[in-house]
Amino acid sequence: MTNFHLNADEGMWEPYELPKLETELKKSGFTKDVANLSNLFEHPMSAIVSLGGCSAAFISPEGLIATNYHCIESSFLQYNSSSNENLFETGFLARSKDEEKRSAPGARVYITTESTEITNQVLIGITDDTESLKRSKLIENNKKRIIKQCETSEEIECRVRTFFSGEVYKLEKLFKIKDVRLVYAPPAYVGEYGGEVDNWMYPRHTGDFALLRAYVGKDGSSNEFSKENIPYSSNSFLEISAKGVRDGDFVMVLGYPGRTNRLLTFNEIQYDLNIGFQESIKFLNQGIKLIDKNTSQKDGTKLKYRGRKSGFENYYKKISGQKNGAKNFELLKTEKSKWDEFLSFVKKNASDKEADYLEELLALINKTLKEDLARRYYGNSSLIATAQRLYRNAAEREKPDQKRKQGYQNRDQERLSNSIKRLDYSFDSNVDKAIFLNRLESYKSLSKDLRRPVFSQKLNLDQEFEKTKIKVEEIYSSRFITSVDILQLKDMNLKQMNALNDPLIIFVRSIYKESLEYEKMYEERAARRQFLKSNFIKLLRKYYKSINKEIYADANGTLRATYGNVLGVSVKDGAFYEPFTTLEGITEKHTGVNPFNVKKSLLDKIAARDYGDYFFSPVSSVPVNFLSTLDITNGNSGSATINSNFELVGLAFDGMIETIIADYKYIPQARTISVDSRYLLWTLDKVENANNILDELTIIY
Amino acid sequence: MTNFHLNADEGMWEPYELPKLETELKKSGFTKDVANLSNLFEHPMSAIVSLGGCSAAFISPEGLIATNYHCIESSFLQYNSSSNENLFETGFLARSKDEEKRSAPGARVYITTESTEITNQVLIGITDDTESLKRSKLIENNKKRIIKQCETSEEIECRVRTFFSGEVYKLEKLFKIKDVRLVYAPPAYVGEYGGEVDNWMYPRHTGDFALLRAYVGKDGSSNEFSKENIPYSSNSFLEISAKGVRDGDFVMVLGYPGRTNRLLTFNEIQYDLNIGFQESIKFLNQGIKLIDKNTSQKDGTKLKYRGRKSGFENYYKKISGQKNGAKNFELLKTEKSKWDEFLSFVKKNASDKEADYLEELLALINKTLKEDLARRYYGNSSLIATAQRLYRNAAEREKPDQKRKQGYQNRDQERLSNSIKRLDYSFDSNVDKAIFLNRLESYKSLSKDLRRPVFSQKLNLDQEFEKTKIKVEEIYSSRFITSVDILQLKDMNLKQMNALNDPLIIFVRSIYKESLEYEKMYEERAARRQFLKSNFIKLLRKYYKSINKEIYADANGTLRATYGNVLGVSVKDGAFYEPFTTLEGITEKHTGVNPFNVKKSLLDKIAARDYGDYFFSPVSSVPVNFLSTLDITNGNSGSATINSNFELVGLAFDGMIETIIADYKYIPQARTISVDSRYLLWTLDKVENANNILDELTIIY
Repeated sequence: MTNFHLNADEGMWEPYELPKLETELKKSGFTKDVANLSNLFEHPMSAIVSLGGCSAAFISPEGLIATNYHCIESSFLQYNSSSNENLFETGFLARSKDEEKRSAPGARVYITTESTEITNQVLIGITDDTESLKRSKLIENNKKRIIKQCETSEEIECRVRTFFSGEVYKLEKLFKIKDVRLVYAPPAYVGEYGGEVDNWMYPRHTGDFALLRAYVGKDGSSNEFSKENIPYSSNSFLEISAKGVRDGDFVMVLGYPGRTNRLLTFNEIQYDLNIGFQESIKFLNQGIKLIDKNTSQKDGTKLKYRGRKSGFENYYKKISGQKNGAKNFELLKTEKSKWDEFLSFVKKNASDKEADYLEELLALINKTLKEDLARRYYGNSSLIATAQRLYRNAAEREKPDQKRKQGYQNRDQERLSNSIKRLDYSFDSNVDKAIFLNRLESYKSLSKDLRRPVFSQKLNLDQEFEKTKIKVEEIYSSRFITSVDILQLKDMNLKQMNALNDPLIIFVRSIYKESLEYEKMYEERAARRQFLKSNFIKLLRKYYKSINKEIYADANGTLRATYGNVLGVSVKDGAFYEPFTTLEGITEKHTGVNPFNVKKSLLDKIAARDYGDYFFSPVSSVPVNFLSTLDITNGNSGSATINSNFELVGLAFDGMIETIIADYKYIPQARTISVDSRYLLWTLDKVENANNILDELTIIY
Repeated sequence: MTNFHLNADEGMWEPYELPKLETELKKSGFTKDVANLSNLFEHPMSAIVSLGGCSAAFISPEGLIATNYHCIESSFLQYNSSSNENLFETGFLARSKDEEKRSAPGARVYITTESTEITNQVLIGITDDTESLKRSKLIENNKKRIIKQCETSEEIECRVRTFFSGEVYKLEKLFKIKDVRLVYAPPAYVGEYGGEVDNWMYPRHTGDFALLRAYVGKDGSSNEFSKENIPYSSNSFLEISAKGVRDGDFVMVLGYPGRTNRLLTFNEIQYDLNIGFQESIKFLNQGIKLIDKNTSQKDGTKLKYRGRKSGFENYYKKISGQKNGAKNFELLKTEKSKWDEFLSFVKKNASDKEADYLEELLALINKTLKEDLARRYYGNSSLIATAQRLYRNAAEREKPDQKRKQGYQNRDQERLSNSIKRLDYSFDSNVDKAIFLNRLESYKSLSKDLRRPVFSQKLNLDQEFEKTKIKVEEIYSSRFITSVDILQLKDMNLKQMNALNDPLIIFVRSIYKESLEYEKMYEERAARRQFLKSNFIKLLRKYYKSINKEIYADANGTLRATYGNVLGVSVKDGAFYEPFTTLEGITEKHTGVNPFNVKKSLLDKIAARDYGDYFFSPVSSVPVNFLSTLDITNGNSGSATINSNFELVGLAFDGMIETIIADYKYIPQARTISVDSRYLLWTLDKVENANNILDELTIIY
């Protein structure tokens, strides 16, 4: 038998690739026709959607969507909460469609309708000898043209996605639903039970589920929220299993994984493992301390920076886990030996040109890695970055739309406005200033050749730091320090902005030329790197072919499928993690102190042992979360975990800290944690008495 | 078959009881003659010793003793460390007897030579109608007489031990070895790997082992340290197994468990579970914060209070674990239903007198429990407590030895001096004052009738707290605030102490009368309680007999045996703890940050996979720690874990936080964590190359 890919269960596959994996799918326990899986317009793929950053699935003919609780917190719970009504505390259940709550502006449901290879169109007019900067411009212009042609209406969003570091480009065409409403969310003590403590941990007991509903106009077109809109009727939806899965069962996750780094060169891996992780830990740790020090409950800044801080903490925990995982799975050692094998293959089989390209790539990477640190500490002022972006926007808007830089076209204007509006509840100029100053001090300590000269000079970085502080104080004395004022800036044209005598804008103008130069330099370098890397991928593919293995594209936010089995695991010496956790484990963890503080009513429900149809005899209870060998990453949150019959058996919501290094290299011990469909149904039935929802679902008993 | 006791594997049995458990022992896998186990003078019991607070065992014919690392830290490692030589960092190995290091003053090895029931002698002259205070005095005098008769020489220590709350008394006669030396201790990164983080946790990877040697005079008498002393030759010693145990194997622990509370009345349990644990947590938490706030690295007080703080932390963790365990194992519910059954038995079968006694006991308990809180916050000044004790000592020494209060006799004087000397490195008057003041503030907040009136008045507790502070400042302005000065106090007679014009002594004198009155009241009450409780035990025993079960005495620091099997366990929903951990788990936990900071040389040894004779194929490595169903508690630390052939297979060193509530009620899921004999031997062999020790041991391959 041909071993198609690197390991059993490894891979985040594009739907079109699944038919060639038929033998392995069947071996894992898949019983249906594999062909079903590759058609985006058919069940089950047509039920799978993206929320942008999270995944989800239709679970009724009336546009009902299941996803993770943690995917709807900000746009639905935060947005609809007030001092009178804290949806985090109470949870929310609409007992009829009338009661459903609308989303924060900009919340979207995306349905992939097409995925087309367009490598030739993106690279049109380009040869291997095209000079890098020109290559960069050509690719950008080609992309803009392709997107413009594709986006035939306002409800269609098109994205050019890079696969295999630019060896392949694809055009993803998405239908964008703009009216999305909250149907159900449990209280936070269920939806994020265990909080930051249990994040990336197992055994786990999180009810990380929530329900939304998609609405469209009566004619089926995508409209912003309106009373006139009607529930969206998708091509298909997932039935929900009340039987759930058993240990060893086949499962599959369909969703939108965000990013993996499994096709790196060895010097890239080496850098991250030896230096990058540690630098990130330092940077994040400093960031957490900065926010703690400079925000307060009293003036509301603690709340404003809560999201940023928890982002830092989350990332800190992740990187620390990756660092440990790299050590425990001896990543450097195994990757080194694989790389050495690859290099001997290259030596024997590659043309001179291929070998030269590889050598150039490795040298280019080494060179850019050195500058990474400096870039990390540059640009940590949200205020200055926003002003820079708006000045650039004004400059770009002097040009016809198609000539503008991507990100500054007409299609980008609303997103830009929304990002400014968000400053309202996530930005404070004093806190921003304190963070900026602290980061600047680190930037100042770098050797001069790593720093931007004009930027350094304008901020007095080569003088005593007191002078820098004075300059920064001056910049922040700007009158554009609230979202309302900053939105005014957005309306100005270049002439108006140039006429402003504001210290922030004066500073932005003073470094504008330099920032364009750096952008050009980075683009040029990125274009070369992309060219060299796509050649590296071609070589790597040849190498793997020579040992009868096949590579798959790194995750890039496009629709993917991964399959595997329900299975426990041992990732710590002396401990085995069972595949299922139970309701009783919720009670066991309950301490009365957050994040383990369940309401008594839920404890009583659990104590009553009224398991109903959701009882699972191997654990003598209702399963809460389960483990499987599925290969997922960030972005897969909310993904439907389905069985062989395409029934929803869970929602994937997390991985395990011990194997989070899997983003760099597939780890056979890596597990996906899904919330069990039986826990969702038990909650809706026994806790919430949500008959309206249960009636709408197709439940398989 | 008669089910002799409450659960399989339950019980900390006295050696004489083992023959009656023969059937159950055989069922558990024991293959030898049970009779061997009940004779204190025969192998293996004659190899088992106490270090006071810890257990240990002879493992060579030349007085070599194996115990836990954590049992020898203070008297051997701390004592022999200096700024030049930190034994915690380096560990210590004597490559010949000459190199062995002596112990801190007072370190002892105790060998139990007799255990005799003496209930009748202790209760001589006492009837059920004896008035409580008289009862108390009579018992005390009887005990003193018995001990005096027993302690025929200085090397014999005799203790009257209370079993079954005073239903039974026994005289324990111990041979006391006074010259004990350090032979081997691994570095702290082995001996306490995981530190406070892993304390009471599994999976565990602690090399909690150390070796001592006992020395006696050439004539076999017990002498203090002398070059002339020779290694003690015990009646027997344990051979060490290099084969170790397998999953399911029979194991037994012989040692000195300290204290359990398994024969409480329901209102005692209820109080601890509902109020006592929480109050202790509050008290300990406050204590930890107080030490943090009032000590500093700079002036050395942080170091002085390190022991106290870690004691608080340790106890805090334990009580928190007990609180959780009580909840998870539904202790209150199961104990309530057992109690109700007991009460119906009492109703049907008890005499009126027996029932009256029970009622009186429960009422007395309820009454005293209310005062517990007040007693907790009274007397938190080490300075005042020490001065009180010395003043009392001076007063007692006016009487002939046999008339003195226990604790103030001639036999107690050396212990008293040692406790003062210890202040030198564990006491600072400013820190003591700060802690005392804080505790006083809590004491002040109690209702007046719960407080001692004279003590309260002298400390101005009914005035504003400022006045209390002034008074406390005055007391602490004493000239007796260092161990050297306090030792002077100890040499004074009562007249000299009464002539002192020192504010500390003046204060002690002013509350002396009251403290005697309270002592009398407590003694009177304790005597009644003891009488009532021994009657309760008699009733309880009848009840259990009626359901064909047998009770065993709570742990009380006497020699006990517990048997069971090597077995993993699930104590957390979703996780199973394997019975063995491995060398590779040490590497896995290593982060480079304490308490997970192993030297590279050890990591390299592990990576080399040179397992030698200690390889255990089921785990493909050398086992480090293992779990068994043995029923142990504090004081068992260092106990020999032996197999059916009485070979040492491990040293018991810890329980698991999830089942630490087992001190209150046997929990079938409770496990003992032992360090594996194979890890000890591997370390001595492969890491330390300690051929001198390996040659001395009898190793069974």
